[in-house]
Amino acid sequence: MKVALLGPKGTYTHQAAEKYFEDLEPVFCSTIREVFNSETEVKFVPVENSLGGGVSDTLELLKKGNDTVTAEVHLPIQHALISEEDSRSNIEKVKSHPQALSQSQNIIEQHGWEKEETNSTASAVEDLEKGEAALASEIAAKINKKDILQKSVQDTDSNVTRFFVLNGEPDAQEKTALVLEPGEDRPGLLHAMLSCFAGHQVNLTHIQSKPTKRKLGEYYFYVEADAAGEKLQNTIDCLETYADVLKLGEFAITGEKS
Amino acid sequence: MKVALLGPKGTYTHQAAEKYFEDLEPVFCSTIREVFNSETEVKFVPVENSLGGGVSDTLELLKKGNDTVTAEVHLPIQHALISEEDSRSNIEKVKSHPQALSQSQNIIEQHGWEKEETNSTASAVEDLEKGEAALASEIAAKINKKDILQKSVQDTDSNVTRFFVLNGEPDAQEKTALVLEPGEDRPGLLHAMLSCFAGHQVNLTHIQSKPTKRKLGEYYFYVEADAAGEKLQNTIDCLETYADVLKLGEFAITGEKS
Repeated sequence: MKVALLGPKGTYTHQAAEKYFEDLEPVFCSTIREVFNSETEVKFVPVENSLGGGVSDTLELLKKGNDTVTAEVHLPIQHALISEEDSRSNIEKVKSHPQALSQSQNIIEQHGWEKEETNSTASAVEDLEKGEAALASEIAAKINKKDILQKSVQDTDSNVTRFFVLNGEPDAQEKTALVLEPGEDRPGLLHAMLSCFAGHQVNLTHIQSKPTKRKLGEYYFYVEADAAGEKLQNTIDCLETYADVLKLGEFAITGEKS
Repeated sequence: MKVALLGPKGTYTHQAAEKYFEDLEPVFCSTIREVFNSETEVKFVPVENSLGGGVSDTLELLKKGNDTVTAEVHLPIQHALISEEDSRSNIEKVKSHPQALSQSQNIIEQHGWEKEETNSTASAVEDLEKGEAALASEIAAKINKKDILQKSVQDTDSNVTRFFVLNGEPDAQEKTALVLEPGEDRPGLLHAMLSCFAGHQVNLTHIQSKPTKRKLGEYYFYVEADAAGEKLQNTIDCLETYADVLKLGEFAITGEKS
């Protein structure tokens, strides 16, 4: 299936898309805006960050209401140590994106390796020389036909990025992503809106305020609720007494919550 | 004043710091984590995005409670057209970070310029050749002694990044940044916590839920309130009946709200 996503090939976005789509034909774009503008119907975008950011752009472009969220995908960010050397003792220098280098300080300091910063984790793998290793995704090693000397060398395992599939096959209706736009700002307004969730005993799994950019001090709210379909209808009717409500999509609860 | 911030020189972070500090001596770091670990006491970090990300890292590192927020700075992201050519008609190619290129499509399409992607907006300015222009901050032009052919060439003016000053001179006490960590998750808990703000008539200007990463489905909340000092004490006492409350700092309300 053709899917528009953030390139270049071999990045963690690419790896996450490979995990979700059985027959991925990636259409690489260079910004999140280009992904949304792509003529390819199905799109794959980061929504909750760590490496590479992108959450703000994604939320703003979703808010236009042209695309429907159909699934979420979680990818634990695990850096592989990739090299043409056959032993760690032959490595003198390790190359990667500054964030990946900073997330793998233990192994780098333990071996006393020199560090070199690159544009992306994927590009570090492309031009490996003698005595060099890269920190990148496992898919980057596969694409560049390089060996993985050690998997999962990052300092902690708490780094997870969350992605949305847009306009894909409808998934289970378990969670709902909503934009709430009250069009005014007063103390207690958010509390009043949340009374709809509390009153109907619906749990929120994510909330984020964002400036509307139309007027200083005017906000909209991006929320995700642990309910969908009929079960959420009373809540939405209640919310509509306070704000414009845009349903971005319904999707399955995945293993890891965000 | 020595200030640790995200480099390289000439980025928008650098420009924002120059705007706030009268006598800035920048100590450039390559990641947000390095900024927080820096021995330089005063730090300058992005907290609400657009270009370059970093919000998640900043919130997590602030939550450790080692640094105090003393001011916020807003920087409208305005790309300048920088070149050694003396007229736009001599330009054939424009270089910049993919996000800056995508934010300035109108001028690029209008002139039919070729595009080249670079690692950062600042690095685009460093190696300009004949017939080339870069899109970058005004400070990048100044540092590299290049001319600005046109200021503010981006498509819209809605792109503002917000930064925090950490451990600086105490500023006015008007807003407060707080972390609320309830240590449990149940429907209605956030609504209950927000009743403290609503009941004491304090307005929230920002709210964001983040996973604690200790346990699936367990969240903490980052909030900013339009009150500080004595005026917020009842609200904080009320919040403490529901959650652990960490005060990250108090600061002045700046011109633009986020």
